[in-house]
Amino acid sequence: MTDLVYWNWIASKSWLTPIVAAATESEVDVEAESGSLILAGVLLSLVIVYFASKLGGEICARIDLPPVLGELVGGVLVGVSAFNLLVFPESGCTADDSLIISFLQQTAGLTPEATPHVFASYSEVISLLSELGVIILLFEIGLESDLKELIRVGPQAAIVAVVGVVAPFAMGTAGLVYVFDVPVIPAIFAGAALTATSIGITAKVLAEIGQLSSEEGQIIIGAAVLDDILGIVVLAVVASLVKTGEIQITNVVYLILSAGVFLIGSIVIGRLISPLIVGLVNEMKTRGQVLLTGLSFAFTLAYIANVIQLEAILGAFAAGLILAETDKRKELEEQVIPVADILVPVFFVCVGAKTDVGVLNPTIPSNREGLAIAAFLIVVAIIGKVITGFTLFGNGEINKLAIGVGMIPRGEVGLVFAGVGSASGALSEATEAAIIVMVIVTTFVAPPFLRLVFKEPEEAKETPATTEN
Amino acid sequence: MTDLVYWNWIASKSWLTPIVAAATESEVDVEAESGSLILAGVLLSLVIVYFASKLGGEICARIDLPPVLGELVGGVLVGVSAFNLLVFPESGCTADDSLIISFLQQTAGLTPEATPHVFASYSEVISLLSELGVIILLFEIGLESDLKELIRVGPQAAIVAVVGVVAPFAMGTAGLVYVFDVPVIPAIFAGAALTATSIGITAKVLAEIGQLSSEEGQIIIGAAVLDDILGIVVLAVVASLVKTGEIQITNVVYLILSAGVFLIGSIVIGRLISPLIVGLVNEMKTRGQVLLTGLSFAFTLAYIANVIQLEAILGAFAAGLILAETDKRKELEEQVIPVADILVPVFFVCVGAKTDVGVLNPTIPSNREGLAIAAFLIVVAIIGKVITGFTLFGNGEINKLAIGVGMIPRGEVGLVFAGVGSASGALSEATEAAIIVMVIVTTFVAPPFLRLVFKEPEEAKETPATTEN
Repeated sequence: MTDLVYWNWIASKSWLTPIVAAATESEVDVEAESGSLILAGVLLSLVIVYFASKLGGEICARIDLPPVLGELVGGVLVGVSAFNLLVFPESGCTADDSLIISFLQQTAGLTPEATPHVFASYSEVISLLSELGVIILLFEIGLESDLKELIRVGPQAAIVAVVGVVAPFAMGTAGLVYVFDVPVIPAIFAGAALTATSIGITAKVLAEIGQLSSEEGQIIIGAAVLDDILGIVVLAVVASLVKTGEIQITNVVYLILSAGVFLIGSIVIGRLISPLIVGLVNEMKTRGQVLLTGLSFAFTLAYIANVIQLEAILGAFAAGLILAETDKRKELEEQVIPVADILVPVFFVCVGAKTDVGVLNPTIPSNREGLAIAAFLIVVAIIGKVITGFTLFGNGEINKLAIGVGMIPRGEVGLVFAGVGSASGALSEATEAAIIVMVIVTTFVAPPFLRLVFKEPEEAKETPATTEN
Repeated sequence: MTDLVYWNWIASKSWLTPIVAAATESEVDVEAESGSLILAGVLLSLVIVYFASKLGGEICARIDLPPVLGELVGGVLVGVSAFNLLVFPESGCTADDSLIISFLQQTAGLTPEATPHVFASYSEVISLLSELGVIILLFEIGLESDLKELIRVGPQAAIVAVVGVVAPFAMGTAGLVYVFDVPVIPAIFAGAALTATSIGITAKVLAEIGQLSSEEGQIIIGAAVLDDILGIVVLAVVASLVKTGEIQITNVVYLILSAGVFLIGSIVIGRLISPLIVGLVNEMKTRGQVLLTGLSFAFTLAYIANVIQLEAILGAFAAGLILAETDKRKELEEQVIPVADILVPVFFVCVGAKTDVGVLNPTIPSNREGLAIAAFLIVVAIIGKVITGFTLFGNGEINKLAIGVGMIPRGEVGLVFAGVGSASGALSEATEAAIIVMVIVTTFVAPPFLRLVFKEPEEAKETPATTEN
C-alpha cells in the first residue's frame, strides 16, 4: 500500500467501493470512507452559518439593533434550540439530532456506519473554525486598538475590572445565601460565574457602532481583557475551595504571574522584534506576505497564551496591539477584514447554536425555581457591572454608563463556572440552570443596551466610524 | 449535566482536572480533555505551513521560479520526507512520527492517552483547510476566467483534453506492455494514471505569471477542467475492467451525463439567478455581504459537485465563472484574495508534505525497477501532453508549446490510480512506485517549464498581469 493515496477521494466515488473494499478491507475502514462526506458536512455547515448570520444580521441592522445580536439569534434558530441544523457533540447531541446528517444521508449516500465519525469530524472542524474566528476577531480588535491609549486608560480599566469582579461576586453570593437560602459553596460558585465579561461580544458591538477607539471603548476593552484574566483566577480559587476547602495560593500566584509576564513580556518583546518583522515583510515579493506574516505572529502568541493556560484570544489581541504600532497597520487591517468576515460569523453563530434556550421555558415546572434565581442573578449581573463606570471619579467627560453597560455580557467563562460547579457536585440543577439563563440574557441584552447608551454622545461628538457597519 | 459547558476550556486548565475528573469521570473523557490541545496543534500547524510556504515561495521568486513550486518544496521539507513536522494519518504516519505532537507533549502537557485523538483531530482539521484551500483557489480562478472566452476556446480545449487523455494513455500502455513486459491490466492502469492534469498547480502558475486570462491560459484551464472529468470517467472504466473484466457502460454514461448536466446546468441556472443574488447583495447593509454571499454560492455548488461524485473544485470553479459575469466581480475578487492567501498555501504545502520522496532514492535497490519504469512514464507523460498543443491547426498566433506544457502536471488523480490499482491487486509495487514518481516529477517540473515557455511571448506582448506575483 502506498502512503500517498487519497482514500478520501476514492471513497467519494461509490462505484469504486466494491473493488477497493474487496482488496483492502483492513485499510479502507469506516474512517477513510467518510472523507469526502466530512468535506460535504463542512461545506453545508458553512453555508448554513453564513445564511443564519446574514439573515439575523440584516434584520437587526434594519430595526437598528447591532448585527452581532442577529448573528447570535440566527445561531439559536439553526441550533439545538430550534431547527437542529447545527448541533454539536459537546452539547450532548448525537448524529441523529442533526438535520445536516439526515440531509447527507439522503443526498450524499452517508451510511449509518460512517455517520458517527462524519458527525464528530465535521463538528470538530466547525468548532475549530469558530475558535479561529474569535482569535481573528481579537487580532482585528487589537489592530484597531491603540496601545498608548490603552496604557493611558490602564488605571481606569483596572478599577473597572476589579470593581466589576468584586461587586457582582459579593452581591450575588450574599443574595443567594440570605434571600434564596442557597448553601455557601454553591452561592460562591454562582457569584463567581457573575464575574467575567465576554470580550468578544462587547468588542464586536463597539466595532459595529464605531466606538472601539473612543476613550470609553478603550477602557471597556482594557477592562474586559483584565476581566478575562481575573475570571480565570477566580475560577482557580473557587475550584480549589470546593475541592479542598482551602485556597491553593500557588495556583493563584502562578496564574496572576503568568498572565502578567505574558501580557507585558509579549508586548515588550513584540515591540522590539516588530521592526524586524516589518523589515522582513518589506523584503518579501510573493502574494500575501503582510497577512501571512501577521497571522503567523498572532497564531504564535495565541499558541503561547493557550499553552500557559491563559486564553488563546489574549495572545491574538496582544499580537494585534503590537502590529498596530507598525506602519503595516493599515494594510494588515484591510487584509484581515475579509478573513474576519468569513471566520467571525462562525464563532457567533456557533455560540447561538450551542445555546439551549429551553431552560427559559417557564411552562416546564422544573425550570421555575431556576428562573427565580436567574431573575435575581440577571439583576445583580447588570447592576454589578453598570456601577463600575461610576467608580471612575474625576472623569467628567466620559460616558460612565456606557462603560458599565459595555461590561454586561457574560460568555463562555460563565458557562464554564456552571459546568465545573455542576460537575463537582456543588451546584444544584436549579442554580446551574439559573447561571445559564443569566449568561444568555446578559449576552443578548447587552448589544442593544450598548448601542442605546452610546447613541446620544455619538451623535453629539460625531466620532468617525472605524469599522463599517 | 448542562449541555452548554465548554469542556474544552475546562480541560485546558490542568488545575481543574482533579476536581472535574473526580465528579465526571464518565463525561470528561480523553476526547474532551484534548480540546484546547487540538486548537494548539492547528495553530502550530498553520504557523509551520505559512513559514514553509513563504520560505519556499520567496526563494523561488528570487531564482526566477514560480513561487508555487517553492510552496510544494517547502511542504516536502516540513513533511514526511524530511522534518516530519506536518505528517498525516492517511499517509500511514502515526502520532509518534509527528514533531508537532512531540512539541505539544513537551510544551502543552499533552498526555500519551490523549495523543492519538489530538493527532487525528488536528490533522483532520488541517486536511479540511487544505481542501477548502483548493476550493477557494478554483473559485478565484473561475472569477478571473471569462466564460465567453472559455466557450469560444471550448472546441480547442476539448481537442487538447481528449488528445491529452488518449495520447499518454495509448503510449504508456503500449510501451509498458511491449518494452517492459508488464501484463496488460497493470499496463492499462499505469497508462490511465497518465491522463489527468492537476488543474490546481497549472492554474496557480498561470495566475502567478499573469497568463490566466490569455487565450492560451483559457484553453489550458478549459482543457484541464474537461480533463478532470475525463480522468474520473477513465478511472471508472479501468476500475470496472479490473473488477469484472468488462466495462460497465451504465457507470460511464452516468458519470459523463452528470458531469455535463452539472457544468451546463449550473452555468445556465447560475446565470439566471445571479441577478437575484446581486440584487440581494445590494440590499444588504452588514459587513462582508459580497464575500459571504459569493462563498455561500461557491460552497453550495461545490457541495452538489461533491455529492454527485464529481470534484468539489468543479463546483467552485463554476461558481466563480458565473459570478465573474456580474458587476460584483471586482469587489469579490479583491475580497477573495486575502482568503485565498491564508487557505491556498495550506493546500500546496500539504501536497508537498504528503509526498514521500523516498521512492526517488536510487541507492535503495528495491526502488530501481520502479525508477526505470518511472523514467519511461515521465517521458510519456510529458510528450503525451506537450503534443496536445500542436493538434490545434490553424491557430498560428497562439503559443502551442505553452498549452501542452500547461497540461503536464499530474496530481491527486494520478495518485488515486496508483492507490486503486495497488488496492485491487492489479499493480506491482514497482509499477505503483513508478506512477508516484511520475506524479512527483511532472508536478515539480511543470511550474518552471511553464514559466519558461511563456517567457518570451509574454515580454513581447506585454500582457498585463491580472494577479500580482
